[in-house]
Amino acid sequence: MLSKLFAKRIKTQNPSRLQGLFPESNFSDNISFGGGCPDESLFPSQALQAAYQKAVDQEQAHSFQYHDVKGPGNLRDYLANRAGQQGIKANADDILLTAGGQQGIDLVAKLFLGAGDEMAVEAPSYVGALAAFDNYEPVYHEIPLEDDGVNLDYFEEVLKEHPAIKLFYTVPDFHNPTGITMSLTKRQRLVDLANRYNFVILEDTPYRDLCYHGESLPSIKSFDTEGRVIFLSTFSKILSPAFRLGWLVASLEIKEQLVNLKLSADLEVPYLAAGTVAAYLADNDLDQHIDQLKQVYRVKLDAMAKALKTYLPADAKISQPEGGFFFWVELDDEIDTRQLLLNEAVPKEHLIYVPSASFYPNWDKNNGLRVSFTGSSLSQIDEGAERLGRILSPAQLKMSI
Amino acid sequence: MLSKLFAKRIKTQNPSRLQGLFPESNFSDNISFGGGCPDESLFPSQALQAAYQKAVDQEQAHSFQYHDVKGPGNLRDYLANRAGQQGIKANADDILLTAGGQQGIDLVAKLFLGAGDEMAVEAPSYVGALAAFDNYEPVYHEIPLEDDGVNLDYFEEVLKEHPAIKLFYTVPDFHNPTGITMSLTKRQRLVDLANRYNFVILEDTPYRDLCYHGESLPSIKSFDTEGRVIFLSTFSKILSPAFRLGWLVASLEIKEQLVNLKLSADLEVPYLAAGTVAAYLADNDLDQHIDQLKQVYRVKLDAMAKALKTYLPADAKISQPEGGFFFWVELDDEIDTRQLLLNEAVPKEHLIYVPSASFYPNWDKNNGLRVSFTGSSLSQIDEGAERLGRILSPAQLKMSI
Repeated sequence: MLSKLFAKRIKTQNPSRLQGLFPESNFSDNISFGGGCPDESLFPSQALQAAYQKAVDQEQAHSFQYHDVKGPGNLRDYLANRAGQQGIKANADDILLTAGGQQGIDLVAKLFLGAGDEMAVEAPSYVGALAAFDNYEPVYHEIPLEDDGVNLDYFEEVLKEHPAIKLFYTVPDFHNPTGITMSLTKRQRLVDLANRYNFVILEDTPYRDLCYHGESLPSIKSFDTEGRVIFLSTFSKILSPAFRLGWLVASLEIKEQLVNLKLSADLEVPYLAAGTVAAYLADNDLDQHIDQLKQVYRVKLDAMAKALKTYLPADAKISQPEGGFFFWVELDDEIDTRQLLLNEAVPKEHLIYVPSASFYPNWDKNNGLRVSFTGSSLSQIDEGAERLGRILSPAQLKMSI
Repeated sequence: MLSKLFAKRIKTQNPSRLQGLFPESNFSDNISFGGGCPDESLFPSQALQAAYQKAVDQEQAHSFQYHDVKGPGNLRDYLANRAGQQGIKANADDILLTAGGQQGIDLVAKLFLGAGDEMAVEAPSYVGALAAFDNYEPVYHEIPLEDDGVNLDYFEEVLKEHPAIKLFYTVPDFHNPTGITMSLTKRQRLVDLANRYNFVILEDTPYRDLCYHGESLPSIKSFDTEGRVIFLSTFSKILSPAFRLGWLVASLEIKEQLVNLKLSADLEVPYLAAGTVAAYLADNDLDQHIDQLKQVYRVKLDAMAKALKTYLPADAKISQPEGGFFFWVELDDEIDTRQLLLNEAVPKEHLIYVPSASFYPNWDKNNGLRVSFTGSSLSQIDEGAERLGRILSPAQLKMSI
């Protein structure tokens, strides 16, 4: 029983938020609305291979050596410039490269959260962020979402009662898991709340550039007046997740500590990954590539919206995202989507989605589910939604509850 | 003052163990005995480029997609087989791929250490390990080193007095920073102590294969009877650090939790890195490559041993490593090697080494220094040791103290 030696943070009684999230399902007609996977056919594989070649040719054997934790200057210059185009003042020294967005979340959690420290999260929240936060044993305050983002009246009441809240985590653009986008006025008011109640905002933006309808809104960070907002992004959704390359923009005081934490976590990002992405960006127009993604994903989003409306019961509450990777479905309170996944969806319909419980700090909402559409073909989207409709049909539910 | 929001683990009054460890020094005749860098000319660059090409060709666009946290099965098969050749029973499921050895240390620390939890470390210890441990706020017990490894009589007395010690960290082969190797009998006795006093051993082996004189000893893990030893290694020193690819072998109970922690830290290792290394290993003989490294490094080790003996004062205590990357030098108690580095070595002699303080939990030993020899040419080794000799000469020291 070595588990008795584990640190208090390890809650062996809780299920893992990320391990086993997607049950094994190897049926030949399997359809997965599970992970937030990009459409593989859209990876610029040729250009990325050329970029790898160029990166190695430029530095020769030195490519394979240790480098500085800061990562390639030309990549950080590019990212600072890109931040500037989005109204965020930053130079290369304000950028920290991370092992995907996930590591950015983990490092920020490590910087701010110790056992009993208070933080606020949207409810529901990105499952991977909760998995990272859990390890630092915070006290969670859950702030409900409205159609235009987090409920700030509610949040302010919570802040009045719990002034020790030090961190708020949000995915303001095409939220994971709900697809909801935070309104402009809420972004501004959120910064105002942070200034008045003295907390830090982690603005996680993996889907920010993937806007298929309407206009993008300014980032929360662009309204930051006191260096309280940490802007986090990643190449995972807009280029490729296989480089595990994300970045964050933070004020000096925060960034210096995050650099220390990055060093002690894994020393540096893989130079071959950073160099390859830098070479790709030097020779290709990322925004042009993103436009191609948006064209394809827009059609898939519309198809999924239509299919869910067609096949799901009329009382299912379906979110209406204008970008990103996900739809969120809420069902009658008595429905347990985890049980339905394991007993019906996977074995009988060969369909995978993500049940809602793991998106809540206390695993206590079982009647929702997340559907990802970007990695599926149009026919899989239609067929998968039809299967989901069968699983959720009143007659079927009566049998399975 | 956002620093007031930082978690208690962040000790802003302490210097960073890893940031700024190597002061800027861009003189054209600069010689660095600082970082543990491999000799760049020995990277199998051509073969690694071919391996990348093969990895991408095999899986095409899927190479650029998300994969499973476990990483490529053929790579884990290879590593399990390699462990078996070293007397460690393991199959692919016992292997966890990590972002270099550094992440392995961080994940193990996260699994076992919370604020106030007790651990033991060799004194001195690898600076990066201490940087990782520091973040989990353990109570350190320092166990001194002897010429044949950690002083186990001393350790047992400490264990009797502090039975709550739950983790011991060691680099048994060509220790970082001292170059010392733990004897066979001590390896066996250490496992016995772990069983009797109920603690876990993290056996960190980045230099294990790099034995230039004498014979390799069995790993501590090979004597493990209760699943208490976590064996950690990395491709950084024997292939290339730029992939950031390490691995650990642990019993199921421990490995399952480490998988969760890996997921919440960064989801998975970069697939392109893991796939490239797997393809390299399929088409090349790693041991043959390591033999080439050993031939070159053996000559450098001998050159450094000779140069240090020639140029350093007679009363300097110089370690006698038979492998690895490092020599350790201990000087008179009143000498502060950090001050000498900043005031003499870098500005006047254009020489970098690592001062001893950061290798101790409490930064309280200032009279030692670490010298790395693998990344320098033979002429740099001779010239750098001569410069070090000048800095440490009694006449010079009298002026600089």
